[in-house]
Amino acid sequence: MKNVNAYAAKANDADLEPMEIERRQLLADDVKIEIDYCGVCHSDIHQVRNDWGNSQYPVIPGHEIIGRVTEVGKDVTQYKKGDLVGVGCMVDSCQECQSCKDDLEQYCENGMTATYNGKDKHLGGHTFGGYSEMIVVKEKFVLSIPENLDTKAVAPLLCAGITTWSPLRQWNVKKGDKVGVVGLGGLGHMGVKFASALGAHVVMITTSPSKASDAKFLGADEVLISKNEDEMKKHQGTFDFILNTVPVGHDTNPYIALLKRDATMTLVGAIDEVDIHGGGLVMGRKRLAGSLIGGIKETQEMLDFCGEHNIVSDIEMIDMQNINEAFDRVVKSDVKYRFVIDMKSLKN
Amino acid sequence: MKNVNAYAAKANDADLEPMEIERRQLLADDVKIEIDYCGVCHSDIHQVRNDWGNSQYPVIPGHEIIGRVTEVGKDVTQYKKGDLVGVGCMVDSCQECQSCKDDLEQYCENGMTATYNGKDKHLGGHTFGGYSEMIVVKEKFVLSIPENLDTKAVAPLLCAGITTWSPLRQWNVKKGDKVGVVGLGGLGHMGVKFASALGAHVVMITTSPSKASDAKFLGADEVLISKNEDEMKKHQGTFDFILNTVPVGHDTNPYIALLKRDATMTLVGAIDEVDIHGGGLVMGRKRLAGSLIGGIKETQEMLDFCGEHNIVSDIEMIDMQNINEAFDRVVKSDVKYRFVIDMKSLKN
Repeated sequence: MKNVNAYAAKANDADLEPMEIERRQLLADDVKIEIDYCGVCHSDIHQVRNDWGNSQYPVIPGHEIIGRVTEVGKDVTQYKKGDLVGVGCMVDSCQECQSCKDDLEQYCENGMTATYNGKDKHLGGHTFGGYSEMIVVKEKFVLSIPENLDTKAVAPLLCAGITTWSPLRQWNVKKGDKVGVVGLGGLGHMGVKFASALGAHVVMITTSPSKASDAKFLGADEVLISKNEDEMKKHQGTFDFILNTVPVGHDTNPYIALLKRDATMTLVGAIDEVDIHGGGLVMGRKRLAGSLIGGIKETQEMLDFCGEHNIVSDIEMIDMQNINEAFDRVVKSDVKYRFVIDMKSLKN
Repeated sequence: MKNVNAYAAKANDADLEPMEIERRQLLADDVKIEIDYCGVCHSDIHQVRNDWGNSQYPVIPGHEIIGRVTEVGKDVTQYKKGDLVGVGCMVDSCQECQSCKDDLEQYCENGMTATYNGKDKHLGGHTFGGYSEMIVVKEKFVLSIPENLDTKAVAPLLCAGITTWSPLRQWNVKKGDKVGVVGLGGLGHMGVKFASALGAHVVMITTSPSKASDAKFLGADEVLISKNEDEMKKHQGTFDFILNTVPVGHDTNPYIALLKRDATMTLVGAIDEVDIHGGGLVMGRKRLAGSLIGGIKETQEMLDFCGEHNIVSDIEMIDMQNINEAFDRVVKSDVKYRFVIDMKSLKN
C-alpha cells in the first residue's frame, strides 16, 4: 500500500517535509487506523536530529497517535470499524519472553518494535510513526480510547501519560502519600495530574517560581522551589515517592535528600549521566530507579482511569505544516504542555 | 570510673597510642563488658585520620566488639555475668521515632549514637569505642553471641557481617537467585558467605583475577572479572541482586547492566560520588539503592543464623601494639579479610 501521506526528516538536521510512504497490507491480526491527532514528544526531535546516534532516515516521528479504525484483519476481535483507538510507543514485541508474559512489553528481552525508527518486521527497513494520515498496527498494540474525553488531548497520554502513570503505580502511590514531581513539562504536568487523582499530596518541585501557579492549577498542593535551600531543608526526609521528569543529566542529590527512609525516586526522562552520592542512598536506605513508558495492559488501565476521572493532557494544537516551528518551541520548553498535530491538516 | 586502658589517636594523622579513659558507672539498664576481641574496620581508619571531617579527638575506634559480661544494672533482664556478648556500630538511639519502632535504629530520625565518635549522652563529649579493655553499653544495644563459634572470628560480624546481611535480607535473596558481590574485602567476603548460605548462586565480581580461587574457597560459585568485557556481556541482564561493597566512588554502569529487569544493586561501601547513567536504570526499570549496617534485631538474627550455619569471618589476629601497622595494611587491602585485636595484649 503506497501513497500514504506523511511528514519526514530525510537527513540529520533537515526540516520535516511532506513525503509519501508505504504501509503494509492488512494482516489477519492488524488494525488499520486513520489518524486524527498525533502528539509531539521530545523524543521525536531527538530522533529527527539523531541526538541518540541511532536514527535511520527518513524519520517519520510520532508515537502519540489517536484515530479511528477503518478496517480490521480477519482475526481481530477487539476492534471494529469506527472505533476510537490509540497507538503509543510500541507496535510489536516477541510475546514470548518473561517481560512480554508479564505485560511489560517495553522491556521485551528480544527488543520491542518502536512505533518509528524500529526494525520493521513486515516491510523490512524501519518503522514509520504517526506524522502520517494512517497506520497499520497489530491488534495487541492498539489501545481503546474512552469516547467521553477531549479526543485530541488524549494523544499525549500514549507516551507522556503512561510514562508517568507506570512508575506511580509500580511504587504504589496512594491516598495520603507525599509525592514530589520534579520538572513541569509534558511529562511533569501529567505526573501532577495522576498523582493528584490517586489521592496523593502532590508537591511540584521546580527551579522556576514562575511555574507555581500553573502547577497548582494542574493539581499540585504545594510548590517547592529547588533553588531555595531553606525550603528544601524543611522538606528533607518527608517524601514517600518522587517522580523525576527532568529530561537531561542533573544533580539528583538534593532530591534524594527529600526522600523518607526506604523511599524511591524514579527517573523517567534523564537517560544520560546523573550525579549521585552513594552516601545519600546509604544513609536512609533510599533508591534511585528508572522506568520506561509502560506495558500495553497498564496503558489501557491508565486510559480507562482517565476516562473515569476525566483526565487529559493540556495541549496546543498545530497543523502539520508548522511542525518545524513546534520542534524549536519544544526545545525551548515553550509549550503548555504538549503540541498535538491535527492530522486533517496533512490533506491541505 | 577512670583508669580504663585504651588505644587512642590524639590528633589527625597521629599514631594510636595507649591512653586512659573514663567509662560511665553502670546505669540500671546497662551491661558492663570486658572486651576480649575487637575487629578493625576501615571506618576506624577514616575516623582516626579525619577523612570524613567529623572526627573528635581523642578517637578511640572499634565497633566490632566481643567480650564477657562482668556486671549488669538492676533492670537488665537479658544478660548476666559471664555471658558472651557483642557490641556493634551503635550504642543508643531515641527509641521513639518510626525507624526505632521499625527496629531500624541505624536510621534513627533523631540520630543514633555511634559506638565511637558519637555524642555521649551520659558523660558528655563523645563516645569511645572498643580498642579498650572494657565498655558499658545499654542492654538494648548488646548482642548475644552463640557460644559454638570461634569467638574472635565473630567480632567482624558486628559491622562487616550485618552490613552485608541486612541488604541481602531486605531484598529477599533466596535459594536459586543469582547474586553478585562486587569487591572482595572485609565486607565482600561476608557477602559471599551469607549469599551462599542463603542458597543463592553467588558470583564474585572483581577486577582481580588473583582473587578467583579465594572467592571460590569462600563460597562463590563463579568469578566474573569485571575488566573482561566479553565475560561481562555474557552475564548481562542475568542478576537478581548485586551487593556492591566497593568502598569508594566508582563507575556503577557496568554492574547495573548485569541486573535483570526490576533488580537492585545496593551500595554498602561507597558514600561519595558514583557514576551512573539514567538510561541504565530506565531501560530495565532497575534500582540503585543504599544500605547502612543493620538494626539490632536483625543483627541478632544474623548472629543466630551464623551460630546455626557455623559462619564466621576470616581474620588475622593482632596485638593492640601493632594497630598502626595494621591500619596501613588495611589501606593497602593487605589482609584476609579482617584484622581482629586480641585485647589481652592491652594488658602487656
